[in-house]
Amino acid sequence: MKIQILATGITTEKYLQNGMEAYYKRLTPMLSINYEEIVTGRQSKKSNTALVKKQEAELQLKKVQSNDFLVLLDEKGKQMTSVQFSGYLQDHFNKTAHNLIFLMGGAYGFDESVYRRANQIISVSSMTFTHQMIRLLFMEQLYRAMTILKGLPYHHN
Amino acid sequence: MKIQILATGITTEKYLQNGMEAYYKRLTPMLSINYEEIVTGRQSKKSNTALVKKQEAELQLKKVQSNDFLVLLDEKGKQMTSVQFSGYLQDHFNKTAHNLIFLMGGAYGFDESVYRRANQIISVSSMTFTHQMIRLLFMEQLYRAMTILKGLPYHHN
Repeated sequence: MKIQILATGITTEKYLQNGMEAYYKRLTPMLSINYEEIVTGRQSKKSNTALVKKQEAELQLKKVQSNDFLVLLDEKGKQMTSVQFSGYLQDHFNKTAHNLIFLMGGAYGFDESVYRRANQIISVSSMTFTHQMIRLLFMEQLYRAMTILKGLPYHHN
Repeated sequence: MKIQILATGITTEKYLQNGMEAYYKRLTPMLSINYEEIVTGRQSKKSNTALVKKQEAELQLKKVQSNDFLVLLDEKGKQMTSVQFSGYLQDHFNKTAHNLIFLMGGAYGFDESVYRRANQIISVSSMTFTHQMIRLLFMEQLYRAMTILKGLPYHHN
C-alpha cells in the first residue's frame, strides 16, 4: 500500500517548500509515500473559476486509478483530531491494500466530478488557508499521525 | 485599538519565520499591530509539563493589562470559518477601543490560570499543529480576515 499526496499547482512559496521538505524527509522512512504536484495552466484574474476547476479535475482524475482510495482535503469535509486521524490511517492500513491518495485542490477548490469520485472528504480546518499552505499543514499532520501510531514523542495530548 | 499577537517561545524554524514575516509585512499597513515572542526557559524532555505551563502562564499574564481583551488560540476553543472570523474582528473594532491580544501557547498548551483570564478561546483546527506552525496559520488568517473586511481579492468563497 502506497500513500500518494497530490497537490494541484506548483508550490511557489519558498518557505512552504522548505517546510514541506523537512516533513517529507521525516515521512519517507516511515511510509511508502510519494508527493506530486499537478502542473496546471496559469490563471489570470479574469479566469472563469468553474472552467478552471473543470480543467483541473481532468488532470486530477487522470492520476487516480479505479482501485485507489481517494481522500479529498476540503473545508466541506469531516473534521478529526490528530489522534482520530492517526486511527483513521491505522484502520486503512489494516483493512485494505489499495493505495491511498490525499488530493489537495487548487485556489478555487474542486469540481463536482472530483467530489463524485472521492471516497472520503477530510477537513483540516473550518478556516480557509491558501491552497499552498494546506500542503505544509497536511504533511505535518501526516507525520504527527505516524508518530502517534509509532509511539514516538512528538504529539502532546 | 491595537492588536497584539503574543507567541510563547522563540520561533526556531527558519521557514516559519520567513512565512510569518511575509504576512506580517502585509498586515502592518492595514492594522495597528504588534507581534511579540515571550522568551521562555529551555525545556528538557524530562520537564514537568504542569510546571512548564505554570511558569509560562506567569510570563504570559504579565503581558496582559486588565483592560485588554484576551483571546487564546487553543484546540478547545470555538471554531469559525474565515468569513466568521473577519466578522468577529469587525465586531470587536466597532464595539470597543480596548486592545485585542491573541495569545498562542507553548508546546504543552495553557495553564488553568490563563484559561481563567481569557475573554474568549478560538480554535484554528480540531487537529493539533506545532505551537510554532500555529503562528504562521494565525498570521495568514488575520491577513485573510482583513482582506475580507477591505474587499481585497484574496479570499475565494
